[in-house]
Amino acid sequence: MNANVQDVVVLLGDSITEFGWDPHGLSQRLAQAYARKFDVINRGFSGYNTEWIIPVFEQFFAKSQDQAHLPKVQLLTIWFGANDACIPPEPQHVPLDAFTTNLSKLVNFVKSPDSPYYSPSTRVVLITPPPVYSKQWNETLVGQGGEPQGRSLDSSHRYAEAVKEVGKKEGVPVVDAWTGIWEAAGKVEEALRKYLSDGLHVNANGYADRNFGLTFGTQVVYDGLLKAISENYPAIHPEALQFVFAPFDEVQESQNRSETLIKRNAFVTK
Amino acid sequence: MNANVQDVVVLLGDSITEFGWDPHGLSQRLAQAYARKFDVINRGFSGYNTEWIIPVFEQFFAKSQDQAHLPKVQLLTIWFGANDACIPPEPQHVPLDAFTTNLSKLVNFVKSPDSPYYSPSTRVVLITPPPVYSKQWNETLVGQGGEPQGRSLDSSHRYAEAVKEVGKKEGVPVVDAWTGIWEAAGKVEEALRKYLSDGLHVNANGYADRNFGLTFGTQVVYDGLLKAISENYPAIHPEALQFVFAPFDEVQESQNRSETLIKRNAFVTK
Repeated sequence: MNANVQDVVVLLGDSITEFGWDPHGLSQRLAQAYARKFDVINRGFSGYNTEWIIPVFEQFFAKSQDQAHLPKVQLLTIWFGANDACIPPEPQHVPLDAFTTNLSKLVNFVKSPDSPYYSPSTRVVLITPPPVYSKQWNETLVGQGGEPQGRSLDSSHRYAEAVKEVGKKEGVPVVDAWTGIWEAAGKVEEALRKYLSDGLHVNANGYADRNFGLTFGTQVVYDGLLKAISENYPAIHPEALQFVFAPFDEVQESQNRSETLIKRNAFVTK
Repeated sequence: MNANVQDVVVLLGDSITEFGWDPHGLSQRLAQAYARKFDVINRGFSGYNTEWIIPVFEQFFAKSQDQAHLPKVQLLTIWFGANDACIPPEPQHVPLDAFTTNLSKLVNFVKSPDSPYYSPSTRVVLITPPPVYSKQWNETLVGQGGEPQGRSLDSSHRYAEAVKEVGKKEGVPVVDAWTGIWEAAGKVEEALRKYLSDGLHVNANGYADRNFGLTFGTQVVYDGLLKAISENYPAIHPEALQFVFAPFDEVQESQNRSETLIKRNAFVTK
């Protein structure tokens, strides 16, 4: 495989993350923004909650002693809550206190010097689950021949607030997708249709609105994430980085092409 | 970084590859198709030709002795010719015989047991450059305040034919983007506008055609690549693979969740 040539951004989450490879989805946008700087790795697992993700994390994130062989994770986004917030007895439900414990555990996997996965170069960002529009979600499920599910706007809100609390406690920035989308929708449930594809997932394909043109739930999250990076981790903002291999016009005009073609650090050194 | 959990697809090429992270671009489509199976790594370098890519390859592809620590490259696509085919004295021009030598060298980096980069698990696919519509490309350049460039349909055709010859000689399948797009355009230069965004790059955003609806140059290449995989390397067709971590309903319904959450091989074992 690729030698240790580009560092990476890892997006950890549930289906909302997994579907980020859709056109205009979060992974697609980040991969485009970080092209030739960092690679973007999607670790989204549809239907998973914070309980099930912990053993998965322990298998995909390299232990400290193995990290030297592998691209560095420069940014890890953790975006859970959508499934944890299912209302009991839904089997995906995780109680609120277990949810916050699990989130803290995920954060400390990389941030705690005592963790076998300690990765001091990894910057963490938490993302809150989006507001659920249960009427639209149940229409979707029933339309697919399924049963309505126990999900609610209130429950998604409680889990979003809990993510913010974990962010405060662990000293990690939070992108508040819940509030961003709720406010964009004018705090009107029916207007959430503009930002959600099915009542649960942020839309990427755009909802054509007579007054606002194309609106996208993903746009709210992408803009929030870039803002969080800019404010908290400006060194890894895409615009702060350079291409690992030089732009072709530098190669073309160089008197010493083989030297110009030597890989560089994406971080511009002064 | 990620431990050795998902193998990868590496897309090597020039700007036509680099821009594949656009919505509906080739990388985006492959990342979506291979989600939770293989990761997609874009190694597209705008403006590069086969001469400049060789030292780059030697820096980003792991040497044989280091490959065990890293995700396996299951598929490597090599898509060059667009810049090599520039007409002299354009500085990106690479003579046709040097172009074929370079392409063979890239193929043999991974296929030859004598190469330091020998990677027996890596399947290679070559892709021909798309047809150039020089009128449209020069409109684009001049529209951006630049000068017209020496590129032509005929030259792109000669380089596309050369890629097919290399494929035959090296025993590697070829996706003939040139012929696919030329035939889709009814062999009419002006109709190439439907498949190219600017006369040089395959379009991803779609060209709304009164008679055909949305047409995409990328679609032709994507369909050709999936067909080549299906015919030559069926084991790595996205539909032949399983998720590395189980679908959530298997986890949910399992009597032994921790066992169900152990990573699996993407290749389904009988």
